[in-house]
Amino acid sequence: MNGAESLVTTLLESGIDTCFANPGTSEMHFVAALDQIPGMRCVLGLQENIVTGMADGYYRIAGKPASTLLHCGPGLANGWANLHNARRAHSGIVNIVGDQATYHQPFDAPLTADTAGLASAVSRWVRTSRHAADVGRDAAAAVAAARTAPGQIATLILPSDTSWDSGGVAVRAMPVPAAPVVDPFAVETAARILRQNPNVLILLGGRCAVPEAQALAWRIASATGATLKYEYVNGRVARGRGRLPIERLPYNTDQAVKVLEPFEHIILVNAKAPVGFFAYPGKPSIQYSSTAQIHTLSRVDQDSASALLALAEALNAPAAAMPDPGPRPEAGRGSPTQEGLARTLAALMPENAIVSDESISFGRGFYPLTHGAAPHDWLQLTGGAIGDGLPVATGAAVASGGSRRVISLQADGSAMYSLQSLWTQAREKLPCTTILLSNRKYNILIGEYQNVGAIPGPTAMSMLDLSNPDLDWVKLANGMGVEAARATTLEACADLMKQSFQQTGPFLIELVI
Amino acid sequence: MNGAESLVTTLLESGIDTCFANPGTSEMHFVAALDQIPGMRCVLGLQENIVTGMADGYYRIAGKPASTLLHCGPGLANGWANLHNARRAHSGIVNIVGDQATYHQPFDAPLTADTAGLASAVSRWVRTSRHAADVGRDAAAAVAAARTAPGQIATLILPSDTSWDSGGVAVRAMPVPAAPVVDPFAVETAARILRQNPNVLILLGGRCAVPEAQALAWRIASATGATLKYEYVNGRVARGRGRLPIERLPYNTDQAVKVLEPFEHIILVNAKAPVGFFAYPGKPSIQYSSTAQIHTLSRVDQDSASALLALAEALNAPAAAMPDPGPRPEAGRGSPTQEGLARTLAALMPENAIVSDESISFGRGFYPLTHGAAPHDWLQLTGGAIGDGLPVATGAAVASGGSRRVISLQADGSAMYSLQSLWTQAREKLPCTTILLSNRKYNILIGEYQNVGAIPGPTAMSMLDLSNPDLDWVKLANGMGVEAARATTLEACADLMKQSFQQTGPFLIELVI
Repeated sequence: MNGAESLVTTLLESGIDTCFANPGTSEMHFVAALDQIPGMRCVLGLQENIVTGMADGYYRIAGKPASTLLHCGPGLANGWANLHNARRAHSGIVNIVGDQATYHQPFDAPLTADTAGLASAVSRWVRTSRHAADVGRDAAAAVAAARTAPGQIATLILPSDTSWDSGGVAVRAMPVPAAPVVDPFAVETAARILRQNPNVLILLGGRCAVPEAQALAWRIASATGATLKYEYVNGRVARGRGRLPIERLPYNTDQAVKVLEPFEHIILVNAKAPVGFFAYPGKPSIQYSSTAQIHTLSRVDQDSASALLALAEALNAPAAAMPDPGPRPEAGRGSPTQEGLARTLAALMPENAIVSDESISFGRGFYPLTHGAAPHDWLQLTGGAIGDGLPVATGAAVASGGSRRVISLQADGSAMYSLQSLWTQAREKLPCTTILLSNRKYNILIGEYQNVGAIPGPTAMSMLDLSNPDLDWVKLANGMGVEAARATTLEACADLMKQSFQQTGPFLIELVI
Repeated sequence: MNGAESLVTTLLESGIDTCFANPGTSEMHFVAALDQIPGMRCVLGLQENIVTGMADGYYRIAGKPASTLLHCGPGLANGWANLHNARRAHSGIVNIVGDQATYHQPFDAPLTADTAGLASAVSRWVRTSRHAADVGRDAAAAVAAARTAPGQIATLILPSDTSWDSGGVAVRAMPVPAAPVVDPFAVETAARILRQNPNVLILLGGRCAVPEAQALAWRIASATGATLKYEYVNGRVARGRGRLPIERLPYNTDQAVKVLEPFEHIILVNAKAPVGFFAYPGKPSIQYSSTAQIHTLSRVDQDSASALLALAEALNAPAAAMPDPGPRPEAGRGSPTQEGLARTLAALMPENAIVSDESISFGRGFYPLTHGAAPHDWLQLTGGAIGDGLPVATGAAVASGGSRRVISLQADGSAMYSLQSLWTQAREKLPCTTILLSNRKYNILIGEYQNVGAIPGPTAMSMLDLSNPDLDWVKLANGMGVEAARATTLEACADLMKQSFQQTGPFLIELVI
């Protein structure tokens, strides 16, 4: 058995059965081993940020890591931004990065780069195998690291000789460290705060936005009068009918400060104390009141449902029925507006859909109007590195085995970062509907520019405007084998959405906004 | 004056007048300063690897650095692979990377990343400004570093408060260190070797492939009988009629070993001793004979023309007319072949064209058949990180002010890494003709797989084949505002080439091979 064969066997033994890949020469023995040892589904992405973004989306839905297959330092670099987003989503990923042979490294051939340096800047766990005999053990350790709560980026660098040399040893799955138990003192403190104070915010991190934890959070809020909110960005939130109809903190610093101002106490459940996405001149970094006290009920690597159950029990909080979000909204009409599109989405979204939200400026207000939709999962851009929406949607569709409709709410500027995803959607015949929000500008930046205190002139607009020439998304999608159509009204958009939900493969709607 | 204004003024003072950009929120004050202070041409790329690749192509033609404008760690990561290629081409680039405000960093907001770690893994010079008052000085130092021979990657990280705070100080250009002088002893040694030995190879690095150095090298070879060759990859080679009609070392290790085997001495002129692009089981890393002696006439940071002049004078080598490459080839006919396309290119290429060569497997043999073309410059993928061909072409066209036709010989798999370049070509109305070599597979990897000793099965082919669905490059180009057409014969390709050379803007030919 060579090192590559020990790698494939060990990954399969450790429960990794999906590999998002863009291989190169130094990975050919791994590719050969994948060919010979059955059991791994290999999904090709045409650029590495598609590969890593798919692995992120896969984890968010499957709840277990996939592996990636990347080529040398530059391949890892190409996929780095979506690893950053995955890190912020607490997604577990096992990156397999092929590299120059151990003995070839010192010659500094053209593709030689600081692969470990790149990996270290985004991974929680990095190792470079040195001998074929170590590859199995190192792979099992990488999987255990990726599975460690709350989910981590693990990067295993494999010099090509460790793949082709004989002496590989496949190993069994390594044990995954248990999540740290919830601190009883933290539960007691939170219970005391909630009993004694009227102005308490319970801030929920994305990883606790699953139905079980939501029910417990609602039980606590109902019994105490506390306010519930989500963090601004969350890897996955269960939403729609029967789920917790709460809002997330605003992106805008002034709005966030206003929302947070009343609260004397903030209890964090797998969340971080709220700070600005960016700093602005004369505005605070910290968004909560300077007199507010922060209490951590559970950290991000702890089990939120256990923490919330302990708190509910400490409070003797009775069961509470989830609030009714009211009737399903009716689809919007006329020219596309943010509210109209949100209503259309809520009206038409099929049961158990997955929403991949990279709608940026257009989509900030989608939450309140979609509580009445059918139950669904909502995935957000967690790390602010644009270009994750389409790959995350693609990986989520792979994870759900094609059984759930995936809807991308996708800003055009961000879509251009990873449009190659559409090809993988076509190749894998994935049930992905992309609503491409075509405003032909980096609209968020035009807003930010105006915050600087000026109207953009021609030089600034040359960097903020995406028209001249206009992107034609129907042609771009067709060019990658994805059926597509343009809509300029919400009625036309609704018709295309309904049509695409009936199909098995991908579809793109260019919605001119 | 705020920090951003001191930055723009200093860059202009230091001779930087072109900025390839994809800005974000943390760069808005820089964008505002660019808007207010005239003199900088700003060119938008729709993903950062386009931005950095354009800066690379710009340097190779302009011979001076441009700046880039990148957004935080992930923006730098997206552009990292083409910085790697630029580093291997010895292109000078000044990266300006906006980042979280100094005081906001500790809060670890979503876009916070190890920007300096990423930068260090690819840059020769990295600095993070800490105060607005330092930005001008740091920018001037960055430009001096980028201009330092042979051309270096310099990355200046600007926390957003250093841009918006007042107290900025614009500074004059800093002196650039002179290139180290040529070692007289190295010249003497090389002259002695050349006088005494028949089997000498003079290996030229890309930076010495300019006409002046070529003439000196030919003078030396004519006087001594030494063989001249280029390294396998070169940032820029002057080619065509009147230029040195020599070959580069082969990519394939077996072929390179065979070519190098006869030489007892290798004199390096701004080149490195030849090693394999990759290692292979049972094959050597070092491609030259184990008994060969390596002599360095000049290092990559030294002036090759001075070194070659000193050597020619030491040898009393008389002037020698450049060999005649014979008549211009006639355009090829029928189905596209490597040889036929090379002949077509040689027949039709306009005077003073620039070729951006990312033809990968299809284009390895283009050199011998294009010596008789009109004089042109040939730019190669230097670092092996695919996806540089289209951005380099775009930046080269910007550098030549639209006065030279740029021809991309572009493999399809690599083109998908940076297809967004086409949009910038359309927006800037650049004279770029892309010959898109559409074989619908990662053909180089299928060859590498077969080297492993096996025929690819279905799993392997799922990662090596780009059909299913076929990419439609005419639609993809049209979708980004670039006129395009498909050719299946060399005659049709020739007609489209001629047509595009008459136009002022970009054109893409999908050549089905």
